Amino acid sequence: MTYTDKMLRDNALTDKVIVVTGGGSGLGRAMTKYFMELGAKVAITSRDLDKLQATARELEEQTGGQCLAVQCDVRNYEEVQKMLQAVLDEYGKADVLLNNAAGNFISPTERLSANAFDTVIDIVLKGTKNCTLAFGKYWIDTKQEKATVLNIVTTYAWTGSAYVVPSATAKAGVLAMTRSLAVEWAKYGIRTNAIAPGPFPTKGAWDRLLPGDLKEKFDLAKKVPLKRVGDHQELANLAAYLVSDFSAYVNGEVITIDGGEWLKGAGQFNILEAIPDEMWDMLEAMIKAKKGK
Amino acid sequence: MTYTDKMLRDNALTDKVIVVTGGGSGLGRAMTKYFMELGAKVAITSRDLDKLQATARELEEQTGGQCLAVQCDVRNYEEVQKMLQAVLDEYGKADVLLNNAAGNFISPTERLSANAFDTVIDIVLKGTKNCTLAFGKYWIDTKQEKATVLNIVTTYAWTGSAYVVPSATAKAGVLAMTRSLAVEWAKYGIRTNAIAPGPFPTKGAWDRLLPGDLKEKFDLAKKVPLKRVGDHQELANLAAYLVSDFSAYVNGEVITIDGGEWLKGAGQFNILEAIPDEMWDMLEAMIKAKKGK
Amino acid sequence: MTYTDKMLRDNALTDKVIVVTGGGSGLGRAMTKYFMELGAKVAITSRDLDKLQATARELEEQTGGQCLAVQCDVRNYEEVQKMLQAVLDEYGKADVLLNNAAGNFISPTERLSANAFDTVIDIVLKGTKNCTLAFGKYWIDTKQEKATVLNIVTTYAWTGSAYVVPSATAKAGVLAMTRSLAVEWAKYGIRTNAIAPGPFPTKGAWDRLLPGDLKEKFDLAKKVPLKRVGDHQELANLAAYLVSDFSAYVNGEVITIDGGEWLKGAGQFNILEAIPDEMWDMLEAMIKAKKGK
Amino acid sequence: MTYTDKMLRDNALTDKVIVVTGGGSGLGRAMTKYFMELGAKVAITSRDLDKLQATARELEEQTGGQCLAVQCDVRNYEEVQKMLQAVLDEYGKADVLLNNAAGNFISPTERLSANAFDTVIDIVLKGTKNCTLAFGKYWIDTKQEKATVLNIVTTYAWTGSAYVVPSATAKAGVLAMTRSLAVEWAKYGIRTNAIAPGPFPTKGAWDRLLPGDLKEKFDLAKKVPLKRVGDHQELANLAAYLVSDFSAYVNGEVITIDGGEWLKGAGQFNILEAIPDEMWDMLEAMIKAKKGK
Repeated sequence: MTYTDKMLRDNALTDKVIVVTGGGSGLGRAMTKYFMELGAKVAITSRDLDKLQATARELEEQTGGQCLAVQCDVRNYEEVQKMLQAVLDEYGKADVLLNNAAGNFISPTERLSANAFDTVIDIVLKGTKNCTLAFGKYWIDTKQEKATVLNIVTTYAWTGSAYVVPSATAKAGVLAMTRSLAVEWAKYGIRTNAIAPGPFPTKGAWDRLLPGDLKEKFDLAKKVPLKRVGDHQELANLAAYLVSDFSAYVNGEVITIDGGEWLKGAGQFNILEAIPDEMWDMLEAMIKAKKGK
Repeated sequence: MTYTDKMLRDNALTDKVIVVTGGGSGLGRAMTKYFMELGAKVAITSRDLDKLQATARELEEQTGGQCLAVQCDVRNYEEVQKMLQAVLDEYGKADVLLNNAAGNFISPTERLSANAFDTVIDIVLKGTKNCTLAFGKYWIDTKQEKATVLNIVTTYAWTGSAYVVPSATAKAGVLAMTRSLAVEWAKYGIRTNAIAPGPFPTKGAWDRLLPGDLKEKFDLAKKVPLKRVGDHQELANLAAYLVSDFSAYVNGEVITIDGGEWLKGAGQFNILEAIPDEMWDMLEAMIKAKKGK
Repeated sequence: MTYTDKMLRDNALTDKVIVVTGGGSGLGRAMTKYFMELGAKVAITSRDLDKLQATARELEEQTGGQCLAVQCDVRNYEEVQKMLQAVLDEYGKADVLLNNAAGNFISPTERLSANAFDTVIDIVLKGTKNCTLAFGKYWIDTKQEKATVLNIVTTYAWTGSAYVVPSATAKAGVLAMTRSLAVEWAKYGIRTNAIAPGPFPTKGAWDRLLPGDLKEKFDLAKKVPLKRVGDHQELANLAAYLVSDFSAYVNGEVITIDGGEWLKGAGQFNILEAIPDEMWDMLEAMIKAKKGK
Repeated sequence: MTYTDKMLRDNALTDKVIVVTGGGSGLGRAMTKYFMELGAKVAITSRDLDKLQATARELEEQTGGQCLAVQCDVRNYEEVQKMLQAVLDEYGKADVLLNNAAGNFISPTERLSANAFDTVIDIVLKGTKNCTLAFGKYWIDTKQEKATVLNIVTTYAWTGSAYVVPSATAKAGVLAMTRSLAVEWAKYGIRTNAIAPGPFPTKGAWDRLLPGDLKEKFDLAKKVPLKRVGDHQELANLAAYLVSDFSAYVNGEVITIDGGEWLKGAGQFNILEAIPDEMWDMLEAMIKAKKGK
């Protein structure tokens, strides 16, 4: 077995209805595909219906599963309510909500307008809130026995990060929502968890952000102790675990899957990695010499 | 000295101009008063101008200091810009921004409308963002040498909490903003910190929230290891430290002042406090007896 | 599928050699059994060889796999070195070290002797250090391509907890070791992670600790939002994921599996769960009435 | 006022008896001196009595206060008990224990012997435990009304750090002890807190560790957002606050004073600081151009 293999037993998600916001591309698409392979019926949402429908058709062909494309701007609560209704009309129920839709601006904060900042809060934080509230009210009203919310956050949800402050702010809010509802809604059979992925590049996203030589300079893999970026199947495996019943006792948890990236930055003496082996030999010799005196 | 005494040396804040949002009442007012006693010029803001002006007059009489009342709904970026201008018009500069304005709903989350949830995010998170962005842009544009942002959050900013989920969500966002800008804006001489106060009851606030017998049942002091709620001067002392130059090397930090409340809830075996001393005697005897066999 | 089902694909651990300290009973035994079912060769260690050997025989019969019993007091570095050698002699290699051996005293701290406190530090912290150091040196010396350390900690490793202070202290040390080596040793292909289990009762352990009526009073399930304790297979599923290559990008992480227990204690307003639905109706009515005025 | 000024009101610590382990040099000495200036009677301890006595004499001359030198190896519980007795013999009581004594090895972990690792655990973790247990038992036995423990930890107590793993491990243990006893011993009037200092260089310490050109390469100030190391008086101010009654409602808290150093490393996009202003201009222009299409 290697990390690009698929982890869960076949049919691990049979009969689950899973809604993936922002499921039309990137990591959302990768998770959706694996859920379908495991037997789930999935609905994917975003603002771009054409792209969504193309993705849904492709995934159905590739997996033999079912995928429903539903147009929805998660910033708008009424659209979210309609999206939920469309899922119920198609599948008769909804078991899992995966809040994956996001937006980001990489920029010095003082260059952002108040409106630009708000846009990220609205998509990430209010969008997650809108979906969670609509699905939660539905689950509670209909006394559904068991349901799960999975939120995609980032490691800078707890450390903060410069140059992506609107996203840090909004993702931190999503994390607090995760932990709060894990406690409050557990009595209704609703589990709530999060994943904080490190660098899982998606074609286009990072490339678009930075021109060629900067890409080299800010090579994401270099900051990761394991010296590589993540493979989409690795994230899909973890997400499948968290939406499956196998993780039934995991609740209110955020699982980081980043190869150790954030810890490498955080630890005060991690910079000493730059010291070569021979230098450590020398330092040891010096210390011993001093002791000998 | 006792904890109700005043901590800093006289004139510790002389010549500082400090803006306290939500400064007209409660903890905001207590901090404002102490800042004025230490020599600062303060501007207080809220939506209720009459109340603000009355507070400003009272504080000026009590302290002999200067207090400017500026009406401002922090949710509105233009109002925030005007508020900043009013402060500059009066005092010629602004050194410290204390984001203290807040809103909260105590309610099961599923009973909240999407709009009610948004209101708390708008006041707490977008309000703090609006003020921070306006002041930050100003400080950076004018190359002010030194400035400080202090944000009031809560301990459930990192643990989350049921029944106050909009506030938990928004305050977590504020905490991430604190940590992000502490790193990003340090190069401009701007420090950013936060305080997470535990129970510091303000006349009216908690009383209003809960009717009589519930108040008894949910006595806040009982959850605190130190068995008492906080005194306003204790918070004011800490806030004065964090806006003063004495804390010049504290940056990106959130300081909890709650008597140990959140830790008491969090630790798995803290419930054993309910075991009386004689029972521990008995348990010890039982264990010894077993070992003797 | 339900949470008592087994999660990973068959043969997910084929050819892995896994050493489980404290593997003779309780959760260590449950994890060992599942690893064997997935194809791993396991060595279990503790001080009690008879019990270990009986467990090893039983597990081999139940699973058809291989289990080696090795006597070892993890507090003693030489014994640990010999234990590693015994594993290498038997299996030719070692891929995974699961630091599960532990000790605990439930007691008011001031009733503990300095020696009793040390005993827990020695077993939990120095024991984990001894095993990790011996295996790590071996892996690095022999340039083994890939290896994993998994440490069992607790949620009070980061919150602390009264009445189990030696354990809190030692487990926090283990968590810091986890995060430190995840960064430092990643360059050698060694991943390091931890699990923080909530209440997974093992026959005898908790029963022995508390006499009958106390057991009722301190019912562990009541503190868990999900209102139940964990099932051993749930922990085994998570542990198998973390020692398998499926988690190859998870590094330096501690995964909590406690049904949300620690968060429930930590959040400031979680106590409001005690308010019944009708009371919330009343409170809402009161608030509306006030607004109407 | 600047950050090298002294913060608290005169006589803020009058009549307090404070014991500072490792108080003979470095930061311990700086805190001791300020406590004496504020009116406290201090006892300093370490293994080197000659150095201690010289320090005590110097500090008495400089401050006009009282300083007692007590030889004590904190690893040895009996020596700790004797040290406490010596303090009681001299001053009649003890109000504050400041656990500052520490040891560290900067080294790749696999180069350390099990014994070397143990030495750091013994000094830092068991030493802190020994002092805390001895003082705590005394305070509880004698029903002293009010007492305080202050522990010096590091930011890598929670993030971990490569190359100082024994220290990370031990300091994390101390932090968990801080939080645990803050809850457990609050009922006896004992508060427990910690400080996590960033780079506060002490003459000799860092210099001794690294030869000339490495010192340049690993310039500590560069990792700090505020671009400077800390001044000893800044740490002394914070420590004085935490041992004084002004912080009476701060309990179980660890306050970081590091200029934002650990957050700068931790946040994922903080590396973008390397992008110059003109590049941001260009990136913005590119984005606008794309949108225009």
